[in-house]
Amino acid sequence: MQPINFMQRAVSSVQTLQPYQPGKPIEEVERELGITNILKLASNENPLGTSPKAQAALANPLQTLELYPDDSGYSLKQAIADKFGLQRNQITLGNGSNQVLDTIARAFLDHNRAAVFSQYAFAAYPLVTKMVGAALQVAKANPADHPTMPYGHNLANLLARIDAKTHVVFIANPNNPTGTWLEKAELHAFLQQVPPEVIVVIDEAYTEYVQDADFPNALTWLDEFPNLIVTRTFSKIYGLAGLRVGYAVSSPEVADILNRMHLPFCVNSLALAAAQAALADDDFLQHSVTTNSIGLQQWFAACVNNGWEYIPSVGNFITIDCKRPAMPLYHAMLREGVIVRPIGGYGLPQHLRITVGTEAQNSRCIEVLQTQLREPYLDQGIL
Amino acid sequence: MQPINFMQRAVSSVQTLQPYQPGKPIEEVERELGITNILKLASNENPLGTSPKAQAALANPLQTLELYPDDSGYSLKQAIADKFGLQRNQITLGNGSNQVLDTIARAFLDHNRAAVFSQYAFAAYPLVTKMVGAALQVAKANPADHPTMPYGHNLANLLARIDAKTHVVFIANPNNPTGTWLEKAELHAFLQQVPPEVIVVIDEAYTEYVQDADFPNALTWLDEFPNLIVTRTFSKIYGLAGLRVGYAVSSPEVADILNRMHLPFCVNSLALAAAQAALADDDFLQHSVTTNSIGLQQWFAACVNNGWEYIPSVGNFITIDCKRPAMPLYHAMLREGVIVRPIGGYGLPQHLRITVGTEAQNSRCIEVLQTQLREPYLDQGIL
Repeated sequence: MQPINFMQRAVSSVQTLQPYQPGKPIEEVERELGITNILKLASNENPLGTSPKAQAALANPLQTLELYPDDSGYSLKQAIADKFGLQRNQITLGNGSNQVLDTIARAFLDHNRAAVFSQYAFAAYPLVTKMVGAALQVAKANPADHPTMPYGHNLANLLARIDAKTHVVFIANPNNPTGTWLEKAELHAFLQQVPPEVIVVIDEAYTEYVQDADFPNALTWLDEFPNLIVTRTFSKIYGLAGLRVGYAVSSPEVADILNRMHLPFCVNSLALAAAQAALADDDFLQHSVTTNSIGLQQWFAACVNNGWEYIPSVGNFITIDCKRPAMPLYHAMLREGVIVRPIGGYGLPQHLRITVGTEAQNSRCIEVLQTQLREPYLDQGIL
Repeated sequence: MQPINFMQRAVSSVQTLQPYQPGKPIEEVERELGITNILKLASNENPLGTSPKAQAALANPLQTLELYPDDSGYSLKQAIADKFGLQRNQITLGNGSNQVLDTIARAFLDHNRAAVFSQYAFAAYPLVTKMVGAALQVAKANPADHPTMPYGHNLANLLARIDAKTHVVFIANPNNPTGTWLEKAELHAFLQQVPPEVIVVIDEAYTEYVQDADFPNALTWLDEFPNLIVTRTFSKIYGLAGLRVGYAVSSPEVADILNRMHLPFCVNSLALAAAQAALADDDFLQHSVTTNSIGLQQWFAACVNNGWEYIPSVGNFITIDCKRPAMPLYHAMLREGVIVRPIGGYGLPQHLRITVGTEAQNSRCIEVLQTQLREPYLDQGIL
């Protein structure tokens, strides 16, 4: 008997999926290269760590790990609702905003439907779209020589990609891995032009880093656009990437749909407790904003001083055009103990995405990058 | 303009989904009934809590919550592999075994396919099957008056349900919510008869509670049956339900498929660390087995003494036929501060599923149940 080919028995979308390539974990570099004192600036994590209030919440002896989490997430939803002037029934929690995005895809997409998003947009959008077998409708981003927002989402192009097959549009503001953003007026005008039955997801994973009072807060548009879903996360400025919690905010009707397409107990007990405490820690949030703002300036200055071309960013990361293949650079920096992020998977094989760290971390990373870029680049072609 | 009906815009399977009804969390009962000193025996959690070794692992200051978890789960997979004589590449981790079951459904089922499982089988099987829009092929269980295994999986019926549309068979051994089980010889013979291209999932969430050396360990059959997937969890005997971690073991080929249909970072850092430590805590495991064994005997004796009919169980729970609608009983017990589980959703509206607790917990629950069942039941019909 022939052995069974189970890949052929799997649903067809599996064959189109490549496992996600996460930023390299520190312990993996230690294991593989045998080095220590590693600096990871690869995954847009908070260099200040986790809110002390969140840490204190975890030390609470009432956290009984043998009990299932509160599947309704009552307390955390109430805290989010209170903070942002929402109702609990507008909120859908997930195991990171990744899972929230996946739940949206599972609820509104299938093999007969399609999702629109921008070139260079966050990798989770094509991933969750492919996982449900839906089609990708990728809109061209701004060109590299765009005067103000190179590589940024182009809203006219996004609008033009929407057709009868489109059921979901994914927008990241600011976007990862580019750091680019959309202004209030243009994004609002876009929402007015999208057909009202098409779900628009505005992913605000990095929004807390943007201090400009004029920056769009999509939560304020929920009443106006019943097709709008806003996603946020505790993995970035709140420093809880390790615990996995993100959320969507929408109309109660859409939240009910998302909550049905939802596995029980997807947010763990410690994440619920830590996120609730982190939400109340304004000092930590402000300190993180300030540190990031200073760090971004440090990077901008380093780029100008060294003649490095970078994409404008309001996130907690900066993406630099190295003008040469980034993978060898990445490996060379890895051997110096500095983990950054090559983004060839995004179609940007010469860029490195670097998380903004503390001043000392930035200095170390800038130095290593200087050393590497000082080496003349010899294109060896396909010898 | 008419408001959009987003439920009609959702994929059709959403409309068939009801949100899962979890066991009532303690804080919810406190909030709603204003009572304290609550005993929860509703969700088959470990009454001894969590392994002290797991707790110690969580106190490790190296757990840096701001960093993403190791998406490969390297250390935990290695520990599982070492303990059970497996290879790392046979293991798929998930956010609880719920998520592992969901990943299996997403990888091997779609709207053109179907899953076979037994009447009264674990609720996650129909849930994950519906979520991907696949058809349910439910096999009749043993009848209530079966001489040895009432309500148990009937393998002949399961086999008869398999047809060309069937891509996955779900088997729970022991099964929740019945506590029933399958013997080694009959289960092995079943695997030999299932078409070799049909995936068979043997869910062993409760297997550690079964002390009988003759009880089937499906891991030992993986080499023989490339279509076999075994799922296990850290939520039951390991006392880590709050942290969410479960896993599947299969051939490397099937594990690769599952790992593609997988969101990044689905297991959080603390779960990875705690599960690894819990796996090594044989003392806690043995203490939990003994406590459960004594508790089951206590319940069997109480049932015999009180004339309560129960389903034979080797799990950490017992399911009792109350011979009257269980919902009013459940509410009456709730008012006494004891949370148990009505299972009308399983088509057993007169049964209560009760988790085996410590001796004192069992005594309290038995007393409350005695008091309630002493009240004569007046069927008020549909007055």
